[in-house]
Amino acid sequence: MQQCFVKIRKSVLIIKYCSKFSNMRLDFVKINVCVQVDKQQQSKDSVYFRDGVRRIDFILSYIDDKDGEKKQVCHPPSYSLVSPECVCEVSAQNTPQIIYYIILKMPILSGSRNTLYWTRSRDANCESERYSLYKYWARFSSFYKEQPLNLIRKYYGEKIGIYFAWLGFYTEMLSYAAVVGLLCFIYGVATFDENVWSKEICNDTIGGQIVMCPLCDKKCGYWKLSTTCSSSWQSYLFDNTATVFFAIFMGIWVTLFLEFWKRRQARLEYEWDLVDFEEEQQQLQLRPEYETKCTHRRLNRVTQSPADKAGRFILCWATVVLWISLIIACIIGVIAYRLAVFAAFASIMKDSPTNKLDVVGTLITPQFATSVTASCINFVIIMILNFLYEHVAIKITDMEVPKTHVEYENKLTVKMFLFQFVNYYSSCFYVAFFKGKFVGYPGDYAYMFGKWRNEECEPGGCLIELTTQLVIVMVGKQVWGNIQEALVPWLRNWWVSRSARNHPESLYSRWEQDHDLQTFSQLGLFYEYLEMVIQFGFITLFVASFPLAPLLALMNNILEVRVDAWKFTTQFRRPVAAKAHSIGAWDEILNMIAVFSVVTNAFIVSFTSDMIPRLVYKYAYHLGSESTMEGYINNSLSIFNISEIPVENRPEEGENPDWFYSSNITTCRYRDYRYPPGHEKQYTHTMQFWHILAAKLAFIIIMEHVVFVVKFFVAWLIPDVPSDVKARTKREHYLIQEYLHDYELEKLKIQLSQNGPNIEPCTCPATAATSVKLEVFSDCLS
Amino acid sequence: MQQCFVKIRKSVLIIKYCSKFSNMRLDFVKINVCVQVDKQQQSKDSVYFRDGVRRIDFILSYIDDKDGEKKQVCHPPSYSLVSPECVCEVSAQNTPQIIYYIILKMPILSGSRNTLYWTRSRDANCESERYSLYKYWARFSSFYKEQPLNLIRKYYGEKIGIYFAWLGFYTEMLSYAAVVGLLCFIYGVATFDENVWSKEICNDTIGGQIVMCPLCDKKCGYWKLSTTCSSSWQSYLFDNTATVFFAIFMGIWVTLFLEFWKRRQARLEYEWDLVDFEEEQQQLQLRPEYETKCTHRRLNRVTQSPADKAGRFILCWATVVLWISLIIACIIGVIAYRLAVFAAFASIMKDSPTNKLDVVGTLITPQFATSVTASCINFVIIMILNFLYEHVAIKITDMEVPKTHVEYENKLTVKMFLFQFVNYYSSCFYVAFFKGKFVGYPGDYAYMFGKWRNEECEPGGCLIELTTQLVIVMVGKQVWGNIQEALVPWLRNWWVSRSARNHPESLYSRWEQDHDLQTFSQLGLFYEYLEMVIQFGFITLFVASFPLAPLLALMNNILEVRVDAWKFTTQFRRPVAAKAHSIGAWDEILNMIAVFSVVTNAFIVSFTSDMIPRLVYKYAYHLGSESTMEGYINNSLSIFNISEIPVENRPEEGENPDWFYSSNITTCRYRDYRYPPGHEKQYTHTMQFWHILAAKLAFIIIMEHVVFVVKFFVAWLIPDVPSDVKARTKREHYLIQEYLHDYELEKLKIQLSQNGPNIEPCTCPATAATSVKLEVFSDCLS
Repeated sequence: MQQCFVKIRKSVLIIKYCSKFSNMRLDFVKINVCVQVDKQQQSKDSVYFRDGVRRIDFILSYIDDKDGEKKQVCHPPSYSLVSPECVCEVSAQNTPQIIYYIILKMPILSGSRNTLYWTRSRDANCESERYSLYKYWARFSSFYKEQPLNLIRKYYGEKIGIYFAWLGFYTEMLSYAAVVGLLCFIYGVATFDENVWSKEICNDTIGGQIVMCPLCDKKCGYWKLSTTCSSSWQSYLFDNTATVFFAIFMGIWVTLFLEFWKRRQARLEYEWDLVDFEEEQQQLQLRPEYETKCTHRRLNRVTQSPADKAGRFILCWATVVLWISLIIACIIGVIAYRLAVFAAFASIMKDSPTNKLDVVGTLITPQFATSVTASCINFVIIMILNFLYEHVAIKITDMEVPKTHVEYENKLTVKMFLFQFVNYYSSCFYVAFFKGKFVGYPGDYAYMFGKWRNEECEPGGCLIELTTQLVIVMVGKQVWGNIQEALVPWLRNWWVSRSARNHPESLYSRWEQDHDLQTFSQLGLFYEYLEMVIQFGFITLFVASFPLAPLLALMNNILEVRVDAWKFTTQFRRPVAAKAHSIGAWDEILNMIAVFSVVTNAFIVSFTSDMIPRLVYKYAYHLGSESTMEGYINNSLSIFNISEIPVENRPEEGENPDWFYSSNITTCRYRDYRYPPGHEKQYTHTMQFWHILAAKLAFIIIMEHVVFVVKFFVAWLIPDVPSDVKARTKREHYLIQEYLHDYELEKLKIQLSQNGPNIEPCTCPATAATSVKLEVFSDCLS
Repeated sequence: MQQCFVKIRKSVLIIKYCSKFSNMRLDFVKINVCVQVDKQQQSKDSVYFRDGVRRIDFILSYIDDKDGEKKQVCHPPSYSLVSPECVCEVSAQNTPQIIYYIILKMPILSGSRNTLYWTRSRDANCESERYSLYKYWARFSSFYKEQPLNLIRKYYGEKIGIYFAWLGFYTEMLSYAAVVGLLCFIYGVATFDENVWSKEICNDTIGGQIVMCPLCDKKCGYWKLSTTCSSSWQSYLFDNTATVFFAIFMGIWVTLFLEFWKRRQARLEYEWDLVDFEEEQQQLQLRPEYETKCTHRRLNRVTQSPADKAGRFILCWATVVLWISLIIACIIGVIAYRLAVFAAFASIMKDSPTNKLDVVGTLITPQFATSVTASCINFVIIMILNFLYEHVAIKITDMEVPKTHVEYENKLTVKMFLFQFVNYYSSCFYVAFFKGKFVGYPGDYAYMFGKWRNEECEPGGCLIELTTQLVIVMVGKQVWGNIQEALVPWLRNWWVSRSARNHPESLYSRWEQDHDLQTFSQLGLFYEYLEMVIQFGFITLFVASFPLAPLLALMNNILEVRVDAWKFTTQFRRPVAAKAHSIGAWDEILNMIAVFSVVTNAFIVSFTSDMIPRLVYKYAYHLGSESTMEGYINNSLSIFNISEIPVENRPEEGENPDWFYSSNITTCRYRDYRYPPGHEKQYTHTMQFWHILAAKLAFIIIMEHVVFVVKFFVAWLIPDVPSDVKARTKREHYLIQEYLHDYELEKLKIQLSQNGPNIEPCTCPATAATSVKLEVFSDCLS
């Protein structure tokens, strides 16, 4: 579709589109009239010709009919276009310049109930809508206020309106999760003193006496458990019973969020008059790119798709797989880095002066240093891969030549989401479920690629490392995202308008300024959703390791709403308005994440956190007759005979600390449940190991079943559409049916009166299909 | 709605309905004309007046208008009723008797696209539709043929058509499951010889030497393991690795069944022209019972429901809960019976002559006798409760006074299904998940109500008992169901027509015969669905215990289709035709059962079957260096010191067999993993116990996650609507839109030509809403 013809007939500006396809119809562009405007009060938002006097009031556009005859009168609103628009002509004295950008891209919605039209300020006394939006919506100071959704919808169209409605609702729901998460964190802080095992670790007579086996080959020496004292304390903040509660709470919160959103969406759908809007109407619009490539295949309705589609399709998916493999390779690279670097850190830190600092020194363990640096490297890799992949994804989707915009967006959504899912979450998955799980034991360590010894977790648990990883990736992504979103368009606009900015106001007119703004790309909204959905994944999938995640997300989103608003009102041209009655494919993805999150959280609580071993110890293996946590640390560490450690795993000379040589140490401890040396089954798993394993698995089963049952019950209990909306919709349907019936009746009466009373009372209405009519007639006459 | 007026005007029979409600519209009844029928060839299915000459050809019915004016001409098909029906009058010379039953209950579908009509044989040369159905569909000899679905739909309406389509599809899908199930069973038979543990049980030097602890207090004596030899062999048939495979297979089969049914349904929906049919149109019809009770509340649209609804609602649910408690009480009663009776059987059988019979005697153990009699009692109780509850459920649903038929059926569905679910399955759940799980051990047995000692499973496993229970309940239900379904209507018809049967053919006319048939109650289809859904539950929920269940169901269904067909064509009056585009609420229930079945099967395989302990033994606790099953029986039985058995649990004098006294036996064995006497932790669980428990739980987790992931992936992969159906539907929508648009355009052209060319080119069409029109006009004129 291209603009091919502009002519000025007397006082009317006519912009004609050439459309080769009969199923595309152009809606009217209506620009409201400003009556008697004083030149001083001229609204900046009105569109003027260069001279600043002649205002463009209406534009009439029309299409060629199939038979080549040009329609000169208003194309009347078709039956299904009941929106009461009318297009008129108003004088624009002379032949002006071509104003090419007004009509550039109008949404074409044949068959939709309301035409979308492009309003500008009605008269100068009213504020322009855009300015109202800027004033009441885009300012950060109004962050606590509800968004003016109806105005947003009116100005930007339903699609963008739905996005902001969703974002607002999500932020609102997040606040509940954030409060509960904060309470869980506070519980952790409040019960800090009950943390018996950390006390034991820090205690000189318990933790100070326990000699641990080296954490890496050759470069690591023996170490005392008490060095992990502080990280054990930190760990407790996130690894306590409140976390289990919070994991279950979030499982149900997610369900409530999705269910209530469905209701909110249904209400919006009703209020914004989208109930009868069918996505298919938009789907029928072909993409221009598709049309240019496929014109010669027009006739065949079934095999309209390009012939070489299959080949390309496979190619495209091969590319996606390639990229995902690339990420996995990067992740493995990072893991290898962690394994390789750990030994180095361990070796360096042994003698480093930080060991002497009381406050900082105890915090910076080799594990911590490795974790943080690896997470940062990871984050940088994620960002670079993301940046590169974005372009690749768009290019391969272009290559597939999807038929419609909806199809295009869906194809891209799958590709991008799959990639980003792997990209953002895989490092967290590694830390949560693989790190420290396949370590082996001092006599028989497990190696990655036969080269790097697998990482161990700290005696405090792996959970704190997952938390670190999560915080770095999540916060980093959010900060970076906001900077990119706000700064990039601003810088671009600043660059584009650099020459014009010096002109006086009268010369740098409003429409030029508007034109110089960034265009809002068709995928702009897609990126906004993607960002939010990835964030949603962070706060649900790994919430058991970090109850403060919803709070971080909440703070980000409060900012995000206003940044987006600011961006929309000041940095972008008014985007092409489009209809949408839902958030589309994202709803399905959110549901998938919600289901998946229950599984990940159950596994995190049982396998990443130390909750279950502690509970099993407390109730089944405790010392004395009372159930207590005392002695847990000693119980949770197995004993290994130093003399049995293979030579290649032993620390090199000089790597061991001094105290090791000064005392006669024959055994070291490691984190596992195995029989001590000398036992008949030495170094095989003890009964406690199997007991704990059974408890872990039982916890997963119970948690998953309980949460899923509650989830589905809640989802079943909450109707998807509020009852009043349902009733009103039904009432309207009923009225329409009533109306249609009356109308047909009226028509038939006229018809019957014309046909005369001779065929009485057997009348076969003319509208009936002829073949059957004849059959019935013959019956009548026999 | 009632028939209040029948008059004969010249040659026309007019039956008038009085409808108080304007939203109810009567469709036409069309009875086709038979032209020039020889009296000899008169089709029996044509409707004649008593004299046998005057045939009823057309009946015209019409309704009063709102303004009281009677319409005399054909009520033309309304706009949305595009079906090309026309009603004419044909002579029926004299005033005949009133034929009251023809028009008794016509489906009233205002606004639907096709009117439903009641066809009789077109002419005498053609067979009547009912006769064709009887000939080609209702005979058992055509069981391998496809059902004539289109004819069924034409004759009985869409609702019944969909039922038979579903039943046929279900039977078809069952055949695959039956074949795989049979293969699994054959695998069990083929690998019979590899069953090492049964050999060990039967072996005189192993099983013959193992003395087992008494199974009940006082009345049971010590016994030798070899007595369970034969039941152990039987058990292997169902409790082998093929069963695990089959459980997983069925999890996926269920998904495929539901997904493919969706597609089939979508295709039927298209072919039967139900795409645009909205359930709501039927929902708008109020039930007469509701209307009579609520006439005075007509005005208030919102609070139309009876005021005392809440009270009744609670009452109704209280009744349901009461009945479910009643079932549970019955189940507990049966369990108590089992516990009580077992001792008796054990005591009797000890000396009974059956012990001497080689073939039968070894099969009839006290466990077996208890199982079978308990299952039979259970079955009888189930049937009696069912019979009683049916009436109660209908009564309490009547008391709730639901507004519409759909609402009525939904309310009843929930009540009936909930009840039947508990009624039919609870005994199976007891055997699968409770029996033998909470036994305790010889020193500390667990008691129900402190009185009856909990049942133990045989050393062969509980699975064989579940199989017995399942077979008895399932087969019993099916046989009983078929007898009831076929015999009861036949007997009733036989009774009703007893006087008329002796009349000659000419006097006992066709319509009288038809009138004497049973009426097909509005809930008839509901019961058919319920029966099938309960069967579906049997073959999915407990399939891991009995791979032949699908085969049994298949055989039943092949019969069921024809029995239903025979019943419909010969034993019932033609039912009221109704529209339906799906199987309704049952779809949701089937989905629920499908999800639930994965969980139950996973639990059956791990906890009811002996699979996991055997595998753990084979790979972790086997004797010697090779993984073998030898020694499993000895390993799986713990040792108890006879002298430590409490007095109240010891067998009474004379209950022990003779060999017990003749040898010096100090220990007995029981089924558990506990330390032997003399061990430091004697009678507490061994490591193997925790190891097996962990393996069981791990199996549940793995099986559930794998099956659910595959399930959802398959469900996502298979589109709900076949692509060609989708394309055709879209195409039709498109054509309708095109047509509507052209029509409106035509209308507008006429309008414009009438208005004259003076308002050129700015025309504001008259159809636009007036308020906005004025606004736009003012713009034009300024």
